[in-house]
Amino acid sequence: MTKAARPKVVIIGAGFGGLTAARILAKHPVDITLIDKRNYHLFQPLLYQVATADLSPADVAWPIRGMFSGRKNVRVLMGKVVRIDRAAKTVHCADGCSYPYDDLIIASGAQHSYFGKDDWAPFAPGLKRVIDATEVRKRILLAFEKAETAQSEAERMRHMTFAVVGGGPTGVEMAGAIAELARFSLARDFTSINPRSARVILVQGADRLLPAFDAKMGEYALKALEKLGVEVLLKTRVTQMADGQIGCGDTVIEAGTVIWAAGVAASPAAKWLGIDGVGRARLVPVDADLQVEGCENVFAVGDVAASRAWNGDFVPGIAPAAKQGGAYVARKILARLGMGRDPGPFVYKHAGNLATIGRNSAVVDLGKVKLTGGLAWWFWGLAHIYFLIGVRAPLLVAMQWFWSYLTFTKGARLITGTAALYETADQEPLKLDAPK
Amino acid sequence: MTKAARPKVVIIGAGFGGLTAARILAKHPVDITLIDKRNYHLFQPLLYQVATADLSPADVAWPIRGMFSGRKNVRVLMGKVVRIDRAAKTVHCADGCSYPYDDLIIASGAQHSYFGKDDWAPFAPGLKRVIDATEVRKRILLAFEKAETAQSEAERMRHMTFAVVGGGPTGVEMAGAIAELARFSLARDFTSINPRSARVILVQGADRLLPAFDAKMGEYALKALEKLGVEVLLKTRVTQMADGQIGCGDTVIEAGTVIWAAGVAASPAAKWLGIDGVGRARLVPVDADLQVEGCENVFAVGDVAASRAWNGDFVPGIAPAAKQGGAYVARKILARLGMGRDPGPFVYKHAGNLATIGRNSAVVDLGKVKLTGGLAWWFWGLAHIYFLIGVRAPLLVAMQWFWSYLTFTKGARLITGTAALYETADQEPLKLDAPK
Repeated sequence: MTKAARPKVVIIGAGFGGLTAARILAKHPVDITLIDKRNYHLFQPLLYQVATADLSPADVAWPIRGMFSGRKNVRVLMGKVVRIDRAAKTVHCADGCSYPYDDLIIASGAQHSYFGKDDWAPFAPGLKRVIDATEVRKRILLAFEKAETAQSEAERMRHMTFAVVGGGPTGVEMAGAIAELARFSLARDFTSINPRSARVILVQGADRLLPAFDAKMGEYALKALEKLGVEVLLKTRVTQMADGQIGCGDTVIEAGTVIWAAGVAASPAAKWLGIDGVGRARLVPVDADLQVEGCENVFAVGDVAASRAWNGDFVPGIAPAAKQGGAYVARKILARLGMGRDPGPFVYKHAGNLATIGRNSAVVDLGKVKLTGGLAWWFWGLAHIYFLIGVRAPLLVAMQWFWSYLTFTKGARLITGTAALYETADQEPLKLDAPK
Repeated sequence: MTKAARPKVVIIGAGFGGLTAARILAKHPVDITLIDKRNYHLFQPLLYQVATADLSPADVAWPIRGMFSGRKNVRVLMGKVVRIDRAAKTVHCADGCSYPYDDLIIASGAQHSYFGKDDWAPFAPGLKRVIDATEVRKRILLAFEKAETAQSEAERMRHMTFAVVGGGPTGVEMAGAIAELARFSLARDFTSINPRSARVILVQGADRLLPAFDAKMGEYALKALEKLGVEVLLKTRVTQMADGQIGCGDTVIEAGTVIWAAGVAASPAAKWLGIDGVGRARLVPVDADLQVEGCENVFAVGDVAASRAWNGDFVPGIAPAAKQGGAYVARKILARLGMGRDPGPFVYKHAGNLATIGRNSAVVDLGKVKLTGGLAWWFWGLAHIYFLIGVRAPLLVAMQWFWSYLTFTKGARLITGTAALYETADQEPLKLDAPK
């Protein structure tokens, strides 16, 4: 095969799915173009630890170029996809560049979503990108600084109240981590306030935490969070939001810092393709081979795809599922190119669900095996070291993360960026009406 | 002495000067209020390594609170000083809080200055704050990304041209570090461009580099930079600046990335006090005891102060000088309070000048002893490890920095923040007129 005739695979997104596909394809005579709107791969499962000042952005994000350094058949590009021309088989980016493909893998992931309430965004940042995490970190740390110089008790209490919206793994992890930050890491650092007296409130719409897990795991998480002092409000829906306030029906909670962990939606891949997304998350519908329905030579994997390959159920939006999807599609494409055996339809194998609540406390649901508490926490830690090594070689980095996490080193406790503290409030901040 | 009668010392700024003073005073029955507009101490000598993606912000900045954790007589506050009421002996902050003092230490440092050309700021960020460094890092890394997808050779060359304005230690270090980034770290990471072909231009107004150093050191730096491929323009002044262009008299240099290392000015301490600053840098004039001229019980140390305690010459704006000043003022205040011996007038002891040009190349000017090359570089590295340990205990952290620097680990190569790449240019960017 001459070089000119080499098949072109374009991959959109360098998350777990796209990266796995690129790595497998790179070993074959295929020309790969890997496009991501950022220049780094983000290890999303640990992003919340950037938000709670446990880790630095560089601890959970690694330059994509470095991963394919010297690989002549992988072209890494930073670009924002705006349109996919299915007839011309071309991907178009915002900077005017376009990239032709023989096969296209869409692995552009998900972003947090307020499901139509986009005006809530400034009040309650989500946790999907590095800038979200540093924004949340800034807000949490600034809240304590503002409480320290607060001029009234009401103001102080508002600054010392943190609300997390959403009781899935991210919400549970965030609530637990903020409680630990207040109770341990910051405990001795202030003179006017006692950080231990901070209120952490977790608001969950369903009647239990961790709905994707076994019911017992949800109960355990509830108890473990309450032990850390977190107030868990079940069957409570946020109906209104304003500056420093959230409204849940008739109740108004004064919370200086609000974090959104309630929902995600797919990246706008359906729009790029000019097709209809599935459900309110606007996922891209795929067939049994992870090919986008009605789109020849276009595949979708990971959080962006709506696949029913989990014994008829939807494949969950978690890292192992994205990796399995990416590996499957790479093999499928290679098979079509005559470079490997056909893998048959995609079958998702669910290894389990993990969530950590705090140091030495986690829930692990592996189907038959269910763990809680200290043993689960060690399992969670070791599983993440294993994943980290899978993404980025050095064992040392993974061990270092684990060590600094274990030892409560809070080296990343920096308030960077434009500090909202000094913004002059020209406008009266939006406040909720007092409940009638 | 009852607690109520304890003398109150307010320190503005937690740089090397303020931190040193606070640490000495904290061991005595004195109530200290340490105010900084950021929540971290910045290890400024290594900040340029954040700009060149060698280090993360958390590697060179440490939360001030953590340094005084559990110290009951040190109150750390995040606040922006706006005024000093000398009659009422009170420091006023932007948030409306005010803090009374018996003695005041101004250690608020310097910021980069365009000396009246403030409209140059968007074209050429400086290097004084963490956000400056991450902004420069973003611009340098984005420049290579833009070059990779550039549609014309002229555009590509412009993106691949980096200009550093100013030939002092910061400028020399930046120019050397960018050249190394292009020639080593990024060399194999791109497919369309060869990062090794990047142009790095150092523009210096004087007829030599490192004017504060011995002449031979400046010559060595010039040769070492040229060996790294840096084009050094001596006796060249920037007279105009526009987007992606700098004008030096009749010459227009097309440079996609411009970095300002040409000058600093004092923080607005003179304005807070209602006095006149000294020189174009607006330094605060101090007497032989580092007391601000005409301001009883107000001292100034470090980069903000104009002190002639170096055998009649001005004390340089470097970290060791700030530390000596901070220690002196703490002892002076303690002596006045009857808690120690009077140290007499301040005498600055100059240990030497250090600057690094790249890995394994530096200049060290200790007066009698002058080193260049590899030996100087090791001296520079060990001196910084020593300083790092002085600021933040763990030896491990210092060793880790040195190790990752030695081994070219570029873990921090992240483009974070709002990527200018995707901003739509509604306005025509400002361009310089073609030279006549």
